[in-house]
Formats: sequence, C-alpha cells, structure tokens
Amino acid sequence: MDRSVFLEDLDAFTYRQALASRDAVVLIPVGSLEQHGPHLPLGTDTILSTEFAAAVAQRLGAFVAQPISYGYKSQQKSGGGNHLSGTTSLDGASLIAMARNLVKSFLSQGVRHVVFINGHFENYQFLYEGIDLALEDMRIGPGAEESVLLLSYWDFVTQETLAQVYPDGFPGWEIEHGGVLETSLMLHLDPPRVAMDRLVDGPAAILPRFDRLPVMPERTPATGCLSSAAGSSASKGALLHGQVVDDLVADLAAELACERAGVPA
Amino acid sequence: MDRSVFLEDLDAFTYRQALASRDAVVLIPVGSLEQHGPHLPLGTDTILSTEFAAAVAQRLGAFVAQPISYGYKSQQKSGGGNHLSGTTSLDGASLIAMARNLVKSFLSQGVRHVVFINGHFENYQFLYEGIDLALEDMRIGPGAEESVLLLSYWDFVTQETLAQVYPDGFPGWEIEHGGVLETSLMLHLDPPRVAMDRLVDGPAAILPRFDRLPVMPERTPATGCLSSAAGSSASKGALLHGQVVDDLVADLAAELACERAGVPA
Amino acid sequence: MDRSVFLEDLDAFTYRQALASRDAVVLIPVGSLEQHGPHLPLGTDTILSTEFAAAVAQRLGAFVAQPISYGYKSQQKSGGGNHLSGTTSLDGASLIAMARNLVKSFLSQGVRHVVFINGHFENYQFLYEGIDLALEDMRIGPGAEESVLLLSYWDFVTQETLAQVYPDGFPGWEIEHGGVLETSLMLHLDPPRVAMDRLVDGPAAILPRFDRLPVMPERTPATGCLSSAAGSSASKGALLHGQVVDDLVADLAAELACERAGVPA
Amino acid sequence: MDRSVFLEDLDAFTYRQALASRDAVVLIPVGSLEQHGPHLPLGTDTILSTEFAAAVAQRLGAFVAQPISYGYKSQQKSGGGNHLSGTTSLDGASLIAMARNLVKSFLSQGVRHVVFINGHFENYQFLYEGIDLALEDMRIGPGAEESVLLLSYWDFVTQETLAQVYPDGFPGWEIEHGGVLETSLMLHLDPPRVAMDRLVDGPAAILPRFDRLPVMPERTPATGCLSSAAGSSASKGALLHGQVVDDLVADLAAELACERAGVPA
Amino acid sequence: MDRSVFLEDLDAFTYRQALASRDAVVLIPVGSLEQHGPHLPLGTDTILSTEFAAAVAQRLGAFVAQPISYGYKSQQKSGGGNHLSGTTSLDGASLIAMARNLVKSFLSQGVRHVVFINGHFENYQFLYEGIDLALEDMRIGPGAEESVLLLSYWDFVTQETLAQVYPDGFPGWEIEHGGVLETSLMLHLDPPRVAMDRLVDGPAAILPRFDRLPVMPERTPATGCLSSAAGSSASKGALLHGQVVDDLVADLAAELACERAGVPA
Amino acid sequence: MDRSVFLEDLDAFTYRQALASRDAVVLIPVGSLEQHGPHLPLGTDTILSTEFAAAVAQRLGAFVAQPISYGYKSQQKSGGGNHLSGTTSLDGASLIAMARNLVKSFLSQGVRHVVFINGHFENYQFLYEGIDLALEDMRIGPGAEESVLLLSYWDFVTQETLAQVYPDGFPGWEIEHGGVLETSLMLHLDPPRVAMDRLVDGPAAILPRFDRLPVMPERTPATGCLSSAAGSSASKGALLHGQVVDDLVADLAAELACERAGVPA
Repeated sequence: MDRSVFLEDLDAFTYRQALASRDAVVLIPVGSLEQHGPHLPLGTDTILSTEFAAAVAQRLGAFVAQPISYGYKSQQKSGGGNHLSGTTSLDGASLIAMARNLVKSFLSQGVRHVVFINGHFENYQFLYEGIDLALEDMRIGPGAEESVLLLSYWDFVTQETLAQVYPDGFPGWEIEHGGVLETSLMLHLDPPRVAMDRLVDGPAAILPRFDRLPVMPERTPATGCLSSAAGSSASKGALLHGQVVDDLVADLAAELACERAGVPA
Repeated sequence: MDRSVFLEDLDAFTYRQALASRDAVVLIPVGSLEQHGPHLPLGTDTILSTEFAAAVAQRLGAFVAQPISYGYKSQQKSGGGNHLSGTTSLDGASLIAMARNLVKSFLSQGVRHVVFINGHFENYQFLYEGIDLALEDMRIGPGAEESVLLLSYWDFVTQETLAQVYPDGFPGWEIEHGGVLETSLMLHLDPPRVAMDRLVDGPAAILPRFDRLPVMPERTPATGCLSSAAGSSASKGALLHGQVVDDLVADLAAELACERAGVPA
Repeated sequence: MDRSVFLEDLDAFTYRQALASRDAVVLIPVGSLEQHGPHLPLGTDTILSTEFAAAVAQRLGAFVAQPISYGYKSQQKSGGGNHLSGTTSLDGASLIAMARNLVKSFLSQGVRHVVFINGHFENYQFLYEGIDLALEDMRIGPGAEESVLLLSYWDFVTQETLAQVYPDGFPGWEIEHGGVLETSLMLHLDPPRVAMDRLVDGPAAILPRFDRLPVMPERTPATGCLSSAAGSSASKGALLHGQVVDDLVADLAAELACERAGVPA
Repeated sequence: MDRSVFLEDLDAFTYRQALASRDAVVLIPVGSLEQHGPHLPLGTDTILSTEFAAAVAQRLGAFVAQPISYGYKSQQKSGGGNHLSGTTSLDGASLIAMARNLVKSFLSQGVRHVVFINGHFENYQFLYEGIDLALEDMRIGPGAEESVLLLSYWDFVTQETLAQVYPDGFPGWEIEHGGVLETSLMLHLDPPRVAMDRLVDGPAAILPRFDRLPVMPERTPATGCLSSAAGSSASKGALLHGQVVDDLVADLAAELACERAGVPA
Repeated sequence: MDRSVFLEDLDAFTYRQALASRDAVVLIPVGSLEQHGPHLPLGTDTILSTEFAAAVAQRLGAFVAQPISYGYKSQQKSGGGNHLSGTTSLDGASLIAMARNLVKSFLSQGVRHVVFINGHFENYQFLYEGIDLALEDMRIGPGAEESVLLLSYWDFVTQETLAQVYPDGFPGWEIEHGGVLETSLMLHLDPPRVAMDRLVDGPAAILPRFDRLPVMPERTPATGCLSSAAGSSASKGALLHGQVVDDLVADLAAELACERAGVPA
Repeated sequence: MDRSVFLEDLDAFTYRQALASRDAVVLIPVGSLEQHGPHLPLGTDTILSTEFAAAVAQRLGAFVAQPISYGYKSQQKSGGGNHLSGTTSLDGASLIAMARNLVKSFLSQGVRHVVFINGHFENYQFLYEGIDLALEDMRIGPGAEESVLLLSYWDFVTQETLAQVYPDGFPGWEIEHGGVLETSLMLHLDPPRVAMDRLVDGPAAILPRFDRLPVMPERTPATGCLSSAAGSSASKGALLHGQVVDDLVADLAAELACERAGVPA
C-alpha cells in the first residue's frame, strides 16, 4: 500500500501545499476494538474501514486521517454485546465528541470535504450527531462549499455482489458480525490476521426483535459471531472490495466534484 | 380507548397499589414532532407509538407513561431532513438524557420492566444509550430482575403482512416516511387527523448511499414524504395494527413473564 | 376543545402557511408526572398547563406545542419530595436541554415568539436557563425581533381572585400542591379525572425554612398534599381559569403585539 | 470577627483534629458579583452570606468554607438583569457542578453536615440540583447520617422583623435587590463599603408577571436597584442580622443536633 | 493593602466609569483549598495568588476579581494527593466551566484583557481549556483586540532569585508544596497565618516518575509537604515577592500596552 | 516488530486466555496529529509513544492497545499553537472522556493494570482527569488491586542521557517540539518518515512566561519547531530509546509486580 495518503506520514508543509492547491478531501476511517470470534482479530472493523479509505483515497487523491479506533458499545443484536471481553468501547457522548472535534478541526484548516468511512454498525448515529453539531458550531448550512459525508462501507455492496457472496441467500446486515463478508474481506486484504483453522461453523444467531438490557449473555453464540463465516474466501473478499471501492469512488467523485486520480481510462 | 392504562390519569395511591401487587411494566412511547407530508399530522410518530403502547398495555396489564413527544433530528434519508419547518427536534444528548432519567426514575420506584415503543426511526441509538447509561448508574447488570426493552414497532411487521400491504413490493423501512404504512395506520387508528384529499402521489425518493451534511434540500421531495402513500387504506392499517399488537403482546409476555390480560382463549 | 391550535394535529403545509402569514407564537406547556395526593391524577401539572395554553392560544391565534410532560425533581417543600412513587422526574440538565432545544428549533423555523406556560413549581429556573442558552447559541440579544417568555400560570392569579378562592386566607404558593387551587381547576376543566371522594382533609404541612437532602420522608403528609383541598369547587376553578386566561391573553397580546382572535368587542 | 472559623485560615492538622472530635458542620456562603446600584458594592451578596455564615459558625462551632463568589445569571425581575456591566455570572451547569463537587469533597473528608447559606436569589435551584446529584453520586439517601441543608438567609426574616424594617409595608423578596434589607445589613456589618450619599430614591420597579428574554433593558431602573434603599439604617441592619442569626442558630442546632457554642445561658 | 483594586468593593457605576475611560484589565487569582502541611493554612494558594494579583493591579491600574478559591484535584506528585483531608477540590469540568464563564462574562462587559494569576500547580491546563473555549464561543481569534493571559506566578521567579532562596540548590517546582517558596512568601505577606513552630523538617519526598491512581497514601510524607520548609524566612519572601511582582508588571505592561501606575521613574 | 503485543491483532479468545492466566497489563499509547516542522511527520507523537509502548510490552509481557491518535490542542509554548494547519486536535472534554471510557472498559474486562504512555505534552492533565473519574465511577480507591499509571516517556530520560544528547546544554522539555529528541528518536525508530534534508536550523523560540490567547501567530517560528533539530542522529535516538525503555521496564515491573519477559540475565 502506498502510504502517502496517510496524514500520519505527511509533514505539515507538504500537507499545506496540498490544501492550497486543490479542494482537499479527508477520509476518516471509523472502526472498533471488538471481539470478532476466534478467527478474526479485535481490530477487524478498524482494519477494514482503513483499507477501504486508503483504496478510495488513492484513486481520489484524498487523504486518510488516523482512524477512530474505538467504537460505540457493541450491541447484542449486531455485535454480540458489550459484555464480551476484548470488546472495548466508547459511550455515545465520547464518540459524538470525537466526530465533532475532528470535523471542526479539519474544516478550520481549510479541508473542503470530510468523509467518515464507517466499519462498525453501532457507530453510525453518534457520528451523524457529531457531524451535525460541528456544522452548527461553525454555522455551516445548506449552500456552503464545505460538506461532510458519512457512510458505512457495506451500504455500497450491490445486490449482484451479495448474490455472489451469499449463494444461499443473504442473512442480513445486522448479523454480519464475524461472518462471510468480514472474513472474506480480511482474507483478501490481510490474510495473516485471519485464522481460518479456528473458524467455528454453525447456524446464525436467532435474536429477538427488541433490544434487552441488561443483556442475557446466553443469547450470543459462544463464538461471538452472529452468523457463520463458513464459505468465506479471499476471492469473495476481492470481489467485495473491488466492487465497493469502485462504487465509493464513483459516488464520492460525483458528489464532491473531485478529480479521480489513477483511474484507468 | 380505555384510558386507565395511562399513568397521566392515575392517582399516586392507585399506582402504588399496582406496583405492590405485581411485577409492574411501564411502556414509554417515543415519537417526534416532524413533518409527514401534506396529509398526515406533525404528531404522527407520537400518535402511532402511543396507540401501539396503549393496545399492548391493555392486553398485558401494563402502564403507559407520557410519551417522549420530540425526537432526534430528522435525517434526510429517513425523514426528509431536519431543515423542514414543522420538524422540531432534540439533539442526541437531550434524548439520551431523557431516556436515562426515565429509566432511573421508574426503576427506582419499583417498576420491574420498562419498555420503549419507538415510532421515529432516528431515535433508536440514542434511546439505547440512555438505557445503557441508566443501568450503569444503577449497577444493574446481567442476572438482575429488572430489564429494559427497546423496540421500533415496525420491526414486528411480518413478511406476510408486508406482502399484503405492499403488493408491488416493499420499498424499505428507511423511506417509509409518510408512506403507506404510516398513512394506513393513521387511517385505521385516527382517521380525523388524515387528509387523504391532500395526498400527493409520486415515485419514491432516490437518495444517495451516504448521508451528507449540510443537506442538499432539493433531494427531499417537495411533499416531504420519501415514498408515496397512494394505496393506503384503513383496512391495511387494521391488518398492520392487529398483527403488530399480537406479536408485541406475545413477545413481551414471553420475555417479561407477565400475565396477559384479556386475551381470548 | 377546538384541537386546531395543537401542532400535533396540524400537517406541515398548513403550519408553514401560518408561519408565512403572521408573526407566529408557539406556547409550550410544561408540567410534570408527579403524585398529587389520592384525589388528583399524576398528570395534573401537565393537564393544567396544557389547558391554560390551549385557552390562551385560541384567543391569540397562537399554536400549542406538545407539552414537556416530565418536570424537575419534586422538592419536599413544594411538591412533597422526589422519593414518592408516581413522581417521575428529570434532572436539571435534561430540562435545561429540553427547553434549549425547543427554543432553537422553533425560532429556526421562523416562529417569532415562544412562550413557556409552566405548571410545576420546581421547573422554573431550569427552563429559564435553557431559554437563555438557546438565545446565546443563536446570538439573539436585546433589540431582536424574536422573544421568549416564561411564566407560571399561578403568577397571574390576582389578589382579588385569591381572596375569593381562599376566604380564610391564602396559605402560600409553595404549598399549593394538591390543594384548593389545583383541585378546583381540575374540577372545572377535567372533572372525570378528580376523585373528590378520596380527598383527605387536614392541616397544611409545616415545613422547615431550609431544604434538607436527603429528605426526611416523615415530613411530608401521608397524602402527599402540602395543603388541604377541602373547599375546592368547580366554580372556584372556573373563576381561577377565567381570570388567569383573561390576564394571560391581555399581557401576552400587549407584549407580543399579536392580534387577539375571538375576543368579543 | 474571630477568623478561626474560616477553613482558609486553618492548617490541615488542626482541621483534622476537629473532624475527629465532633460531628463537623461546614457552612458554605454563596453570593454573586453583581451590580447593586450606585451605593452598594458588587460583592454585596457574597459579603452578606459570608457574614451570616461566620456569625452562625461561631455560635455553632461550625466551619465556614470559602464562598462561592460568583452566582447564577442575574434575572431582570430579581436582580436587574445579566446585561448590566459589573454583573459577572455563571451559567447553571457551572453552579450545579460547583455545589456538587463541594458536597462530595466535604462529605468524603468526614464532614457530617454541609449547609449552603445563599445570598443571591437566582442561585437556589442550581445549588439544590448540585446537592441532589452529589448525594446520588455518593448513594446517600433517607436515613443516612450525613445531610446537606440549603437556605437563603432572607427566608429566616420573621414577619415581626419585616414589620419593623418596612413600616410602610414589605415590597416582596424578589425586588429586594439593592433595597432596604441589603443596604441596612451592609450599614450594620460593613459600613465602609456603603456610599449612602450615592443612594438614589425612587419608586419600586414594576416588572411584568413573566420573564422575557432577551431582556428589554429599559425595564430595569437606571440605578439597577429594584426598590429604593431610602429608609435604610444600621439599626435596621442590626435588627435583621440579630434576628436572622438567632433563628438560623436555633434551627440548625435543632436540625443537626450540634452543640451550640458561646450561647449565653 | 489599598482595597480599591478589588471588584468586590466597587459599586457598578464606578466600575463602569473605569471601563469607559481606559482599556480595562481584570486579574483573576486562582488558588485552592488544600492541605499545606502543619504550618501553612489551607488557603495558601488562594492567599498568595490574590496577593500577587493585588500588588500587580495597583501598579498597572488593573482590577482584581474575586478569586477562584477551589482548585483542581491535588495530585500526589505536586500537592500530596487528593485523598488528604482539608484538600477540597473541583473536577476538571468544573474548573474549565468556571474559567470559561468568567472570560465570557468579563469580555462581554467590555473588559479588554483578562489575566489569570494561578497559584495551584494542578489548575493550569483546565484554566487554559476554559479560556480557549470561551474565545471560541465568542469567535475571538488572532488579531482581536481582546486577549486573555494565563500564568503561574512561580514561572516568573528568576534563576538569580532561586539561587538566593535555595542556596543549596532548587529542588524543582513540582515538589514546591508547603516548602521554602510558599512558606517564605506567607511569612512576608501574611505572617499571622504561618505557624513556624509547627514546621517539620525532613528530606524532600521521592516520588515515582509516573502518576499512579488510586494513590498509595504512604508515598506522601506525613506532613503533607513535598519538600521541607526549613530555611524559610520573611526576607526570602520579600525577595521573591518583589522580584516576581516587578517582572509581572513589566511583562504585562509590555504585553497589554497598559500604562503603569505608581512606578518610580 | 513482533506484532503479537498489539490488541488489534489478537482474536478475542487468545486475549481471554491471557487475561485468565496472569495479571494483565494494557499499555495505551497517546499521541497527537500535530505539525512537527518540515522534517517530521504529523503522526510523530503517536508513532513514538506507540514505539515505546511496544518495546516495553514485549519485555513485560503486556498488551498494547490502539493508540489515542489525536491529542489535546497544541499550545504555542509547547507545540507551536493550535492554529497551524496539520494540527488536528481534541478539546479537553473529549480527551477526558476517551481516557475515562478506556480505563473503565479495560478494567471491567479483568485487566489489572492500565498504563498510559504519553507522547504529547499537552495531553497529560486531561488523561489524569479521565483516569481519576473512571476510578471514581468504579469505586476503586486506595488498596485496590487494580491500578492505572500515567507517564510521559521523556520523564524517564536521565540527566546522563540528556548530557550526551545535548552536549551544549538541554533547552528544556517544553520547547522540545520537533527538536533533537523527537528527531533522533524518529531517525532511530522510523527513518523513512524523517526528511533530514528539509530540516531548518535556527535558534530556539523565545516565548513569554505566560500563555496568551488568542495566540500571536508570529511568535511561533516559521518552521513550527520550537528548537532546532540540528545535531539529531540515529545514534542519539538509539541511546534515548534504549535508556528510556530500560527505565520504563524497570519501573513498571517493580510497580506492577509483573514478570519481565525476555530480559537477558
């Protein structure tokens, strides 16, 4: 991976030149430190959102900021629950504050567009609120030149891709935790951090139509995964990654009117 | 409607007797004050969540608390956007605080189970956070006798019901704002507050796969509805209401081990 | 009651027409869910503030927003104390946030004047703070066209009315909790929700000149009322209601320079 | 004044001996930095509450903590308004936090009773909230040995005293801002800080029955006082001071079961 | 000490005249209520910062506001630790809020420059944050006429002075708690509040290079002082005080371009 | 670098085994995204604190959590100021919240000791506050088995090392921003991210003894560095790194009574 898109690696003067020469776009990956079963690392959500951000940034000429590496509390119906060891989470106010501060800080520097690339289901609304409060603080409303986008990468998976990745039918996004999608992507993007020999097959979790707190721990499968990762493969990961990156690049380029770099004719 | 389930109507002594005699369940409807197009009232979400709560409460012997009548900011992809006049919203911290205070206050009084019945898409995660913080404050964890449930009523609509209500295919929950589901329910439950002659037909909104802030107002249809309410009917509303109430009663009774009142053999 | 003053009942387009055609005034009732003795319902404060708001709105051509149905913690010297079951309260920060959000949301929509009609003694300062912070957020200072008013309805009871309602002398506002004023108003406005046969007579509570926390529960009379409601009547309620509404209408019309609707010549 | 009651003057070892030998009581004066007309200093509220605390402490064997010298925003109906130069105020959250922190800090050290002696009308509810939150944090509820009291010193002025101080009738507490009560007390307790030659006589302010924000500055008299201080005297101040201190000592001694020191037989 | 520099003593009209006639500077002393060993009073930090502020104000024609008398939690490595009785502290949010409110309040009144004179090591960063947030609230950025300065008085002690005060070598600022500097200053400025006969000599505390929480109480010397005050004298205090005041006056006069009053030619 | 110490890379089951088998220690690096002149990358503080944490963890058998990659606002006297592009910062409340959440989350999982390794001067007090609040939340006080340590790595540089690294005298920690220490460490640990050819030599910044806000931008040298990095070398970096890691390992091992792994006899 060409690291030059990462703000962490740039010196301030190089960065300022870029700010001065074009409408700068900063992508902020958001993940979690969360159990993902016996076969995936705790950092899966952060790793994947960072990978998507890096791939998109390279084609858009955007920057990638340091990820938000801790996410909102894992919920039992989408991540197994926050009671599981290894899952290390922030409360809502912290995540709101983080997003609010970063938006304000980047836009104040002259960044034109900030894009949050989310990889942890539970984060979404808190990021949204942080963005909205930042714009209120800065009095940025409709018609402004600046914008902030928020998306979860799985919202860009098409039906066609889903049909190929889940030939027996897609179980639903909420229980895609440690399942075929995340595992395939990791096999494609970061195979040393996947332990396929530790994968445990089994039926998908059946969870109630409500959230209950405190959780009843026995409702989460022993693996911590909500659906089986059996059937995952690096080639499915490549398919998912390629299609999602293509769509992200297309949508962001259109929305932000930024030039695409490195896109073959 | 038999108003006796509403806490607002009870005196403190009658309420205390009930608390002493059984495992008390309090249902809290949560809605919004939000534009719902030209044919539905601003209070639609609160009206519907209160109706569901009342119907469930009567069959479970539960109480209904005063609704949370203002919701989280309307988002463009699920409610048209918070920039639209008539939409009067709370920020995330306020909604979190509201849920947190109510949970603590009811559980401290001896209520055993609190159930939030949500009717406004954007509220969910903030209610969840409020509940979680309240239980942390009270040191209530797994194994406790108390519990708090959170649900959106549409999560209890079955595939069978959807197929009947949307014979041409279901457009998705996020754009069910001022559409067939809400309109049919209002026609069944509160027809004087629906103005079918003002209903405007048209295609469903096509919104991007990301959220953008500040919003581009032109992306919201002029009606403020995200999908057409054409095809709504009181009979569809009756079907939806009946099925959802039945399922809510069944699930809550099982979960809370509370006796069902008034259920015919 | 003509419900057309309630925002809950209006559709967004009708509401927007009104905003465009005149200086719109929105009244926000504020109450509580609080024990009011054995003869009055828990919702008494919300019911009464809503009734006053509705009556005033009809004569001023104003709107009535959804009430703030939960109030600040009941204090022993003015409401018996927050330890009493049935009393379900918000902390100060929540109530401040609620008022702040609503003021900002209504003024941003183009509402010119917001008026809080308070019916729960303990709320006042927190509402004041919420209003002040909202105006600071919006940079609205002296000389602005917008204004926000805050009042408790009992501050509009005249000495003449008091003399008629309390022929033996007025015991003071702080201990008017579940007493003659609230009971008479409820008998006039909402008799089905009053149980006069459950009323318990007795001397007024004698409370210290300081607040003590934690409370000594034995200082609150067993009824939860701080003064006796004996002597209440619907006719006293009619007198109170009529005089207060007249004075509210007169003062608000003068202050807000809004036209009075439906006032006989 | 014997300064030995002030914590500021004590060394930690002397203080700890006192904590170990008796049920320690700490009095916390609360005031403001607020305009009080042309004849009284900005520190009037802090000076007076500190004087009352010191006098009470000497007779009860209590300690006096550093005052809270800044108060909640001056309101037009009770202090002339927060827009007036010289008035330097805290928002509600700050004052709540201050009270909450001090209660927790003192009770954690082994102090048994904390008493807030308030001298600024607008502070009361925020202090109450801070106390309540501190006790919730510490899980101190009814039946605990610790207690926290809150009072405004003018609530201890008796009808008899009022009749003597205001021979023409008492104008009401809310407009006692820079008036006869405060001026007389200052003349008795701290005459060098009163400039009677600068006193401006005039009618009491006539303020509406509601609060309006933003304020209309012209509603506050040019002096900033809400009632005239004409008729103030050191002897009235001595009467007020003596009676209030006697009553405070009597009530606190009874409530806290602390021994009175230095009370003549 | 000429008390006329203290805002507490001024009436609002005199203060406003000063605001109108020159670029007003307000100095805010910040201290703590904190154990300072057996020989110094709990109020040492507040007393000293107030003394420095008063001396500087007299020479600069500035005002001195009421001190912030409670400081951030004492840390074991700089103040012995917050577990010690007598030490009565605020959390970070409270101190941030206090500074933020005071800056906003003074600048809004027309004060041109606010200077915090800090006397308690642990306060610094929280004051800084409060100042920064206030300026963000008020949209005051580089180039503005207003400014806020923050300093700890010991940062103005020169190497020459240190060499005279600590002939055997300076032990470092962090452990100057209850040591020679503070004791000498108190002996010079406020001798009745120092009990030299209670002074305990001994070696300086040896504390780890990290902070540990919860503290290990045995790491703090029994006296609560981190270095010995043996060798303190009023003459050292006079030297320290004179040099620091001279330097403060010189630096502030240059920075704020305010006229120095009373400086001999 | 053996990545196995990083939680990001571990699966939840491996991590849980470790928690069960020994007193687990988690190190949390804390840095910033901050301009560091033309020759060092924006991520310098995070890179260095992570490197120290990794080296220490390998020898102590500890884990390294995801870094806190954004720090408190850069201050002009220690980091050049927060107005400089590239510097992307959090406010105090956000950083406090982050530390508080992480401490609570890790200790709740059964981690015994948490150690924050700080690499950005301005962070320290906010991290301290977050830790203190977390322990208060969890009621962990003196005598508990758990502990949280906080340190900045440069506090472990000895006088001997300083003398070697700065043969002409050490300029002080506050202006070590982009200077010899950070540059030498980067040259040793991560040379590809250093651009020595871009280094600009010059005198150290001379900054006032107070902080001023808003900043006067011209007081920061054009490079953004507060002292020159001329004289930096990889060998100095190796010396600094080796000595600091040795001392950190020794001190933490002693304090936490954890076994050292991989230390040659």
